[in-house]
Amino acid sequence: MFKRLLIANRGEIAVRIIRACQELGIETVAVYSDADVDALHVKLADYAVRIGPAEAQHSYLNSAAIVEAAKTAGADAIHPGYGFLSENADFAQMVTDAGLVFVGPAAATIRQVGNKDAAREAMRTAGLPMTAGSAPMNSIEEAVQAARQIGYPVIVKPVSGGGGHGMSVAGNETELISAITKFANFTMSGTAFYLEKYISCARHIEVQIVADNYGHVIHLGERECSLQRRNQKILEESPSCALVPAMRQKVGELAVQAAKSVHYTNIGTVEFLMDNAGNFYFMEINPRIQVEHAITEMVTGIDLAKTQILLAAGQPLNMQQEDITVNSHAIECRINAEDPELNFLPSPGQIGFYHQPGGPNVRVDSGVCAGSVVQPYYDSLIAKVIAHGKTRGEAIRIMQRALAEFRIDGIKTTIDFHRRLLDNPYFRRGNIDIQFISNQMLVPSAIR
Amino acid sequence: MFKRLLIANRGEIAVRIIRACQELGIETVAVYSDADVDALHVKLADYAVRIGPAEAQHSYLNSAAIVEAAKTAGADAIHPGYGFLSENADFAQMVTDAGLVFVGPAAATIRQVGNKDAAREAMRTAGLPMTAGSAPMNSIEEAVQAARQIGYPVIVKPVSGGGGHGMSVAGNETELISAITKFANFTMSGTAFYLEKYISCARHIEVQIVADNYGHVIHLGERECSLQRRNQKILEESPSCALVPAMRQKVGELAVQAAKSVHYTNIGTVEFLMDNAGNFYFMEINPRIQVEHAITEMVTGIDLAKTQILLAAGQPLNMQQEDITVNSHAIECRINAEDPELNFLPSPGQIGFYHQPGGPNVRVDSGVCAGSVVQPYYDSLIAKVIAHGKTRGEAIRIMQRALAEFRIDGIKTTIDFHRRLLDNPYFRRGNIDIQFISNQMLVPSAIR
Repeated sequence: MFKRLLIANRGEIAVRIIRACQELGIETVAVYSDADVDALHVKLADYAVRIGPAEAQHSYLNSAAIVEAAKTAGADAIHPGYGFLSENADFAQMVTDAGLVFVGPAAATIRQVGNKDAAREAMRTAGLPMTAGSAPMNSIEEAVQAARQIGYPVIVKPVSGGGGHGMSVAGNETELISAITKFANFTMSGTAFYLEKYISCARHIEVQIVADNYGHVIHLGERECSLQRRNQKILEESPSCALVPAMRQKVGELAVQAAKSVHYTNIGTVEFLMDNAGNFYFMEINPRIQVEHAITEMVTGIDLAKTQILLAAGQPLNMQQEDITVNSHAIECRINAEDPELNFLPSPGQIGFYHQPGGPNVRVDSGVCAGSVVQPYYDSLIAKVIAHGKTRGEAIRIMQRALAEFRIDGIKTTIDFHRRLLDNPYFRRGNIDIQFISNQMLVPSAIR
Repeated sequence: MFKRLLIANRGEIAVRIIRACQELGIETVAVYSDADVDALHVKLADYAVRIGPAEAQHSYLNSAAIVEAAKTAGADAIHPGYGFLSENADFAQMVTDAGLVFVGPAAATIRQVGNKDAAREAMRTAGLPMTAGSAPMNSIEEAVQAARQIGYPVIVKPVSGGGGHGMSVAGNETELISAITKFANFTMSGTAFYLEKYISCARHIEVQIVADNYGHVIHLGERECSLQRRNQKILEESPSCALVPAMRQKVGELAVQAAKSVHYTNIGTVEFLMDNAGNFYFMEINPRIQVEHAITEMVTGIDLAKTQILLAAGQPLNMQQEDITVNSHAIECRINAEDPELNFLPSPGQIGFYHQPGGPNVRVDSGVCAGSVVQPYYDSLIAKVIAHGKTRGEAIRIMQRALAEFRIDGIKTTIDFHRRLLDNPYFRRGNIDIQFISNQMLVPSAIR
């Protein structure tokens, strides 16, 4: 087992990994930018190393400084968290080349699944169901041509990158041309994109995969992440209320098949779209821990952060697919430092009074405390509230009382937005899709 | 179901009951003394009613004011919590007479189990194993006589009251005379006490009982509460590592037998001593929710506070004994506003920075937040940390990392005492008894 692990991240996920290490008896090394000297993850770690100025490009994305920090601090493993360098194959390779263990899949796997076009090609070969899609391209002419073949609506996706950045939907040729012009302005000119058939009223269903270094792969059931704003997840649930057992089994098997086809190791997530008829379409594989991993932990009783570290240390999987049973329901609300009344404008600043909910069946994974300064440089996620109930209805009621308790002064947050979302009658009936937030929840209050 | 429930308590248990009500859709009415105007339970409740000055005698023990507050606020039920009026049969009767529901057993049951001598007599008749004991008495002469029959060591116990107040152990006649003299000074002169054979190296094992109004009684397994200081529990666990399955079944059956013999309704706890040889001796029945109920909730998945309210509303038990399985381990540490370095002297004052632990498998039930004033008038318990693991060892590691995160500035607390306790090699081996804290943990630091 590792003696000392460096966490190449910040915020709630750095805190989450520190907790896992403490419970495993592994010492922790935090890294921090100049903006994060007083951050919670720095306070909680055993050691902390400065890696650069506030801008992520020079700190949390500074591969060389991070590997150097790990060597200096005597760490024998690096955990990348999510975001930042977590899907950077070169970084994973650099960590391995430095003689350290990268907590995640092999660099080659990250590279393969990170190139969306290559990943789709591999998955098509492995027999996964796919939406119609184009080859990578970088011109309007090619796009118009491809869209005619696929049929509108189409979605424009960058070949590399994650988190929904740069994606847009086009319902006709005019919208497509406009989307690609915007894409070219948004990215560096010449960056490749591809088109996919866009499925309306789709649900985002993803499956948690756990794989050891010896070819043993299982899944931990699905998460429904249809509630998104600009392709950013807002609230996630496990299990999905839209799946009957046969569908659940089907999508789980597809995910295991996808993971096996790329010889996947460590934990990861296979993302699918599900259409109205219950058909699944492969989207992508996320080769890292996800923000929403906690809901899977609640319903399966398996600690994914600890599992991830144990697998990286070479431990074989100590469970079989048939050991995994889900008889409860978990919901996660992402609490962002954003102002929902101002189109979710980030709301950096210093937190004054801070009190997080407690009591039974409520879990809070937070990266902040009273006095923390929410920085403008990084993602606006500051905490996650997870509610766990016997049923979806109970989980909703527990979440409502938890959010009612949560007090964060000094900045704007999405807490009240979530309370409104939980009250929505369509949400309560489970009647949601990936357009739900923009269609139902973002109507100006004058019209509501 | 109740529309509105008044909580005749304060602190963490008032917060706990508010949470249960919110999840059940019941409105809550807090009561508060002048000292508690800004207390957390007042902030979290839907309504709040002042019931008197700071001194508990005139506020939280003021039956008439509390029943009046319930009527004024339109409450249809009163939950007494623990302590204060929770074991006061007259109060339960007064609530019922006012046409409200008392969340607890019938007044007659509270009266019967509250008189320790009557309770012991009833339990002896019901066939429960008992330590040798005397009839109630109030003179040194009677005591000396009885102790000769029972054999030393004996324990002197008041006939009424709870929480270990007024109890003391005598190893010989001199100590007995001194103990009774102290007792007479401590209580009102003439107050009755009784003697019991004192079992050294005993463990405190208690069983959670759940009973509906229709004669259906089950138990939710045991809690080990041997870690006590001056008869006040400090750290509790469920299950007890000292019980093998046959003993677990035995003590559970004894507890159900005890409850049935007094036609017990609602939730309650049957307390036993266990000697070195694994024999159980009935101690008492606590007719109320207990501080340590949360560990039973964690290992059984049953919400006791909600169950208690549903049972009081007349709902029949919706589970059988065979539905209750325990496959995990939970530990609770009571965080008191006390200074362990000054013989656990209460440490009232205002809390400055406050940050409670989060993440997986950690639950915090707290009655305070940043800025709360810990009052000198009431019990010093301010929060409970509950850790839940697959095994006892895992639960200990989770608790250690949780306590390492817990920061409460401005007052002294028992957090570090608990961290030291969790590190103790005897504790880690489960080698504990009710003298453990005084024998192992309270040695002056100069000798340690």
